[in-house]
Amino acid sequence: MQTATVYLVGAGPGDPELLTVKARRLLDEAEVVVYDRLVAPEIMALIAPGTARISVGKQPGSHPIPQEEINRLLVALARSGRKVVRLKGGDPYTFGRGSEEAAALAAEDIRFEVVPGITSASGCAAAIGVPLTHRGLSSGLRYVTGHCCGDRELELDWRGLADPDTTLVLYMATDHICRIAVRLIAEGLPESTPAAAIANGTRPNQEVMITTLGEIAEAATAFEAPVLFLIGKVVGLADVLAVAGHRGRVVERALSGADRA
Amino acid sequence: MQTATVYLVGAGPGDPELLTVKARRLLDEAEVVVYDRLVAPEIMALIAPGTARISVGKQPGSHPIPQEEINRLLVALARSGRKVVRLKGGDPYTFGRGSEEAAALAAEDIRFEVVPGITSASGCAAAIGVPLTHRGLSSGLRYVTGHCCGDRELELDWRGLADPDTTLVLYMATDHICRIAVRLIAEGLPESTPAAAIANGTRPNQEVMITTLGEIAEAATAFEAPVLFLIGKVVGLADVLAVAGHRGRVVERALSGADRA
Repeated sequence: MQTATVYLVGAGPGDPELLTVKARRLLDEAEVVVYDRLVAPEIMALIAPGTARISVGKQPGSHPIPQEEINRLLVALARSGRKVVRLKGGDPYTFGRGSEEAAALAAEDIRFEVVPGITSASGCAAAIGVPLTHRGLSSGLRYVTGHCCGDRELELDWRGLADPDTTLVLYMATDHICRIAVRLIAEGLPESTPAAAIANGTRPNQEVMITTLGEIAEAATAFEAPVLFLIGKVVGLADVLAVAGHRGRVVERALSGADRA
Repeated sequence: MQTATVYLVGAGPGDPELLTVKARRLLDEAEVVVYDRLVAPEIMALIAPGTARISVGKQPGSHPIPQEEINRLLVALARSGRKVVRLKGGDPYTFGRGSEEAAALAAEDIRFEVVPGITSASGCAAAIGVPLTHRGLSSGLRYVTGHCCGDRELELDWRGLADPDTTLVLYMATDHICRIAVRLIAEGLPESTPAAAIANGTRPNQEVMITTLGEIAEAATAFEAPVLFLIGKVVGLADVLAVAGHRGRVVERALSGADRA
């Protein structure tokens, strides 16, 4: 029996049409799909009924499946000779731990291929009418994780992050968004800086809050699903660039006209 | 005659299979495709022979088509009632000026929709075996443009950028890569920091140089096509994670074992 290739595939932000053509093909060809809790049900629904599905979902606060166990599972499945797709929300190499799985496969001499996905940032930004960069408003873009291991305090480059000309994208930051906002403001980023929180971005149940840095922490309590935060002057363009019907339910809009960039 | 919707569509990094399902569908349905020089010929080849194509390519150093002219063209095409796809390399809202076109359409009350694309960063990273983030090596990710307007000197947050725990992605930085490397080293980022330059990433003619920050500027002279630069400890994983045959032609490899993260 030949060891199969493992495909580490990005599922993108949620909308099944935002899968890549390659991801769609590999899902059709797969014999086993190992998937995360972050993969949208609409995407799981595309998988043929005869294909085996294994959930390795990690729920914050509950008991997650250790990464080592997922790695071992992928190795065992590849050795069983079945064509494996490891499906991950967003892009496997952007805060996806895809490289840990890739390294585990490489260590066992198992062939793998990484198929990039639309990041949550790109997907959500387009869906709510917020460009990640815009001449004159943002000259750069930072992706930061607000997740920290165990009881350690979140330590980020606060001074550097408090740059009014940079767009900040915060992943996994719900637990610490209040502290993040406070530190950014303390380092000089104006309270009035436009900010957005998006849950279930690009999906039919997308929810968006467009507000300011000073009030963004409340968004964390308004949503149940994982939230992506966007902070920066570009968020102020949403009023002009959001197309009616594309933004989903707007939970609250605290951004006053005077604050807009 | 009804005004048509304009679709601002990300073409992704180059591999036609990395188009989204939605981009593929919209290209099939389009009556006119307005495209950039950065869109790969393999993608243009997918467009049906009967579909009109309009090039608005901008060549660095030569005379580019002014953005205002592109905006006016999109408005006129939409008003002609034809289904327009504006196809842009990568993701329209990540250094793509997509928002300037969106704003021009919004100002004329023309409906538009932004379809996100795989960024060059995600595409190239996966193709050369470099994760953009990796626990213990990179806690964040910065996308920076090395392009500056006219004769102005490139001014970036050099101290913040010289963070060894961040992955830097440099777009449009070929002209200034030497100065960028010098400034990062002057601010304390080790010369030995792994760095990669990628041209035509994900395409059959992909070229890669894996080297160090101290030697990255030479990459700029080795390639003719636009180059994406990746700088950070994660680049040191390429030796482990690059799958044979996935990396294309390796132009030079100056990274010694001792320098690896």
